[in-house]
Amino acid sequence: MRIDLDAWLRRRAYTLKELREHLAAGRVDEDVIGLLEAINSLPYAFSTSSCSGRIQLYEANEPGEKFELRTVSKWHTPISVDQLVTVMGSSRNLWLAVLPPILHICVCSLAAAEHLLKTLRDSGFKRAGIISISHDGITIETMGTERMEMPLRLDGKDIIRREAIPLIVERANSLLIRSKVRLSKLEEVLKDEVAGGMDNLCR
Amino acid sequence: MRIDLDAWLRRRAYTLKELREHLAAGRVDEDVIGLLEAINSLPYAFSTSSCSGRIQLYEANEPGEKFELRTVSKWHTPISVDQLVTVMGSSRNLWLAVLPPILHICVCSLAAAEHLLKTLRDSGFKRAGIISISHDGITIETMGTERMEMPLRLDGKDIIRREAIPLIVERANSLLIRSKVRLSKLEEVLKDEVAGGMDNLCR
Repeated sequence: MRIDLDAWLRRRAYTLKELREHLAAGRVDEDVIGLLEAINSLPYAFSTSSCSGRIQLYEANEPGEKFELRTVSKWHTPISVDQLVTVMGSSRNLWLAVLPPILHICVCSLAAAEHLLKTLRDSGFKRAGIISISHDGITIETMGTERMEMPLRLDGKDIIRREAIPLIVERANSLLIRSKVRLSKLEEVLKDEVAGGMDNLCR
Repeated sequence: MRIDLDAWLRRRAYTLKELREHLAAGRVDEDVIGLLEAINSLPYAFSTSSCSGRIQLYEANEPGEKFELRTVSKWHTPISVDQLVTVMGSSRNLWLAVLPPILHICVCSLAAAEHLLKTLRDSGFKRAGIISISHDGITIETMGTERMEMPLRLDGKDIIRREAIPLIVERANSLLIRSKVRLSKLEEVLKDEVAGGMDNLCR
């Protein structure tokens, strides 16, 4: 598979134009804007989608039931005990998750992909891989590892002790903050990078 | 990066010899042996490591603390309430996790990698990517999505209601079984594959 650099550049221009529109409309997680700017200032890469990590409350029998899951609430910033308790409602099956950040980045060549995979891992994003290769770019997916996924109610029965909720919220917040710190570190690393340049990594 | 087919074949032979030794010594998860055989019968691939998914009880302040985590127990098959309660002990911070299967597979070419990524996704392994490219092969990592990660005790306090333990064990077992079913399906798909053959995918 050869990457067509012109096709990649066109896709890049189009994707970055879309991103500017999403930014203008306030549809991008604030926590990740600086990182996206850093990625998109690299001559060999652009971001295609991102989530900065979140705390999520959802109804489902089990995790991973993509089509039967209903999101009750989600937050991209630490939460208070009250915020959680207020929305816990009376669902028969209720789960609390802390989901890690996820980024998709499209690069112009295999050399660029290998370089970026190494940078991501060195910055603490140990889960990173090439998920697609096409004529207009190679897409890398990376995600954090800070994760919680626990039932609060199952079959209509409360699973956790009421007095334990503050401890759970504290750990959930701590995991989310660790994710955000990791994103900041990656942003710094990418900003500091003396980019190899188009001539090096795109050909 | 060009893959050297001779180097890949030598690595394949060496890795499969090691696997036979691990099998003979009983060091491979039984649940995954059939799948490894299917992978290793493909002319363009071999397995380098695997875990069939597990239920794990560990001590840690938070998940993801790789160097401060102590495994209390782990099981590759469904567990009973008694099995769990017996080992819960009095750790200050105790977590229960259901971890999905993870496979590493080394292929001989980018074409083989793209083919296998598609096969994995079509078989329900949505998380799959190329994690390294070297002269002696391209390594793909894939993992399941069935996951639970919940605290049972935090700062010395019980988090869950005693009477909720059977419900938690039931969901943990259900997630583990879903993972095992997914592995079986992948095994069937790979066995059925009319392999493209060395000439197609390795050159």
